[in-house]
Amino acid sequence: MSEERIIVQKYGGTSVKDPERIKAVAQRIKAYRESGYSVVVVLSAMGKTTDELIDLASEFSENPSKREMDMLLSTGEQVSVALLAIALHEIGVDAVSYTGSQVRVRTDGNFSNGRITNISTGRIHKSLSEGKVVIITGFQGIDDDENIVTLGRGGSDTSAVALAVVLKTRDCEIYTDVDGVYTADPRVIASPKKLKEISYDEMLELARLGAGVLHSRSVEFAKKFSIKLHVRSSFSDEEGTSVMPTEEMMEKFVISGITSKQDESKITVRDIPDKPGIAARLFNELGKQKIYVNMIVQSTGHDNRASISFTVKKDDLKKSIDICNTMNREFGATAIEFKEDIAIVSAVGVGMLSSYGVAGKMFSILSEQNINIEMISTSEIGISCVVDAIYAELAAKVLHKAFIEV
Amino acid sequence: MSEERIIVQKYGGTSVKDPERIKAVAQRIKAYRESGYSVVVVLSAMGKTTDELIDLASEFSENPSKREMDMLLSTGEQVSVALLAIALHEIGVDAVSYTGSQVRVRTDGNFSNGRITNISTGRIHKSLSEGKVVIITGFQGIDDDENIVTLGRGGSDTSAVALAVVLKTRDCEIYTDVDGVYTADPRVIASPKKLKEISYDEMLELARLGAGVLHSRSVEFAKKFSIKLHVRSSFSDEEGTSVMPTEEMMEKFVISGITSKQDESKITVRDIPDKPGIAARLFNELGKQKIYVNMIVQSTGHDNRASISFTVKKDDLKKSIDICNTMNREFGATAIEFKEDIAIVSAVGVGMLSSYGVAGKMFSILSEQNINIEMISTSEIGISCVVDAIYAELAAKVLHKAFIEV
Repeated sequence: MSEERIIVQKYGGTSVKDPERIKAVAQRIKAYRESGYSVVVVLSAMGKTTDELIDLASEFSENPSKREMDMLLSTGEQVSVALLAIALHEIGVDAVSYTGSQVRVRTDGNFSNGRITNISTGRIHKSLSEGKVVIITGFQGIDDDENIVTLGRGGSDTSAVALAVVLKTRDCEIYTDVDGVYTADPRVIASPKKLKEISYDEMLELARLGAGVLHSRSVEFAKKFSIKLHVRSSFSDEEGTSVMPTEEMMEKFVISGITSKQDESKITVRDIPDKPGIAARLFNELGKQKIYVNMIVQSTGHDNRASISFTVKKDDLKKSIDICNTMNREFGATAIEFKEDIAIVSAVGVGMLSSYGVAGKMFSILSEQNINIEMISTSEIGISCVVDAIYAELAAKVLHKAFIEV
Repeated sequence: MSEERIIVQKYGGTSVKDPERIKAVAQRIKAYRESGYSVVVVLSAMGKTTDELIDLASEFSENPSKREMDMLLSTGEQVSVALLAIALHEIGVDAVSYTGSQVRVRTDGNFSNGRITNISTGRIHKSLSEGKVVIITGFQGIDDDENIVTLGRGGSDTSAVALAVVLKTRDCEIYTDVDGVYTADPRVIASPKKLKEISYDEMLELARLGAGVLHSRSVEFAKKFSIKLHVRSSFSDEEGTSVMPTEEMMEKFVISGITSKQDESKITVRDIPDKPGIAARLFNELGKQKIYVNMIVQSTGHDNRASISFTVKKDDLKKSIDICNTMNREFGATAIEFKEDIAIVSAVGVGMLSSYGVAGKMFSILSEQNINIEMISTSEIGISCVVDAIYAELAAKVLHKAFIEV
């Protein structure tokens, strides 16, 4: 028997949201099977199932045990995999479903946010060698004591990448409800371009900026093991976007995406003594209170004092200001200022590394529109500017036009 | 640490049908815990969940794989146990939920209708010794290869009995939506009496006659290991009915129940050659076609020929007649007759064994009402008569009055 090529395919919640969609997925898998692939499928829960189970639990407790939540939520994927197996049998494709427990998806045991440490491939290879499509519940594994552990947001993507790693294949398709990664949000830019390729780092930057199709953890995992991810739609046959190592990309755009993140607020702690440890203590405290800080800029001012500006989610603004005020009893800043409605407009692209003047060009374009830049932050593959929220769309449009529609 | 007394409690689907009911179950468990019991809970799926999942699967296939159906259906109990654990935590009771897989409920591997062969108690005892209420999914186990296997109808009752066996306790409560076993169906008899006690054999006879609160298999299991079952309602605090060995019963009624089973049909195969094997071949064939035959009566007639009468479910009548007609090419019976609407009226009671004249009294009572008896069958603890369906209720009423309301 010749060794068949293994492909891992992950289908998200919208791709299996109802029986019709599950049947469509079955047809797609059948086509892959007939073209000679050994297919390993990873599924999410159907549509809004996970949210519904969370709502159900909230009728009992505001703060339910994480272990029991994992027990509860993991049923969603189990339903999906059984139904897909039945759908495949019905169209003459041999298939078998497994839970994370049954294929020993081992995790670190961190309930609700576990990390995969190992997966046993014996059972998967055995079923594949019997000609079966192997369907595995995404989003879940077990700890050393057989407790069910879920993997947190985007967990099924991570399950798929981990399976590609242990099955030693670089073919990993992530099916979702969009047909790839675009240069901008189609709700903002009339006709953004679909990218054929994008690097892991750009994808991570997009995820950080709230524009990612994939969750960061799965991309980090894919990057670590050089798993090429093909992000595509289960609703069409179009090619999607390949997420891959920078060095393998055919074409490196200077700017591959323009994002504009709203619902953010800016806080400035003005004129605090410029001595070590103060920033650390402030951001540690914010972190402890589970406040996600996106951009941070520190500028040195006069008299050995510095100002720190940072952005938080608008929902977290009040709590963040309270924390700043409380801590300021020690810091002695002259003022805690804030601006409730700001946007972070960013240009992302690996090509930026080898291209001069991108930042300058970006600032000029915004200035031509009289858009005031309130904070600037740069990384190796991205430049982000904080602007007043009313300019969020305009800024994205002019930047997209200048950098991408050229 | 002193050894606490272990009680196994099983709550059926109506007892956990919604969050309010689950919270009520949690309060009941809390009370048991506070009175010093170590509590092991077995749960069914919430309300109609199992039926809904079966409907969902039927959108894919008329004959889905049993293995995959077990994968699908087992999620129902998993949801229940997680929610009950959360509900218990919320009222300050330490608790942990386990799947059949996690406590190694081993079965014979017969998908959709497995039999429990063993349960590991290590994990259960460990959690109990930590003061936790242990909540286990009913209705499910695994095979030697970790595949999920469900136990068929009444499976959660069987799970509870099996747990009582391996945990070496005789305290096993079965909570349902009725508060015990009654002398007759309250929809037929205005005020039937609730039985304080009933023997395993009577309970089995009632189950066979369609009047049982418990499924036969769980009663057989309880009988085999002398587990006393306390059948009671989760909607009240009233004592229910104890199902126990005949020899332990305080009071043995001559007749403990009157049943009247409708939706049955009678078939008579008239004047077949009275030679060995013919009946066997007929009933084997009916069994192969999954037709459940309830009563069988054979009478020897003239010329070494005999007639066989038997009852089947009304839904199976047409198929059964077809089988009889087909097989009659070999048998050479003179006629295949049938009566579509009959009822089986039965009196059940262990006391019958030591009491004379019960059958005669029963026939007299029916005859006084001009109810014609078309078939009679007796067992050690029951007498059943086939009558025209229109007399079903009347027969039950007069028998209940004569034997029980005295």
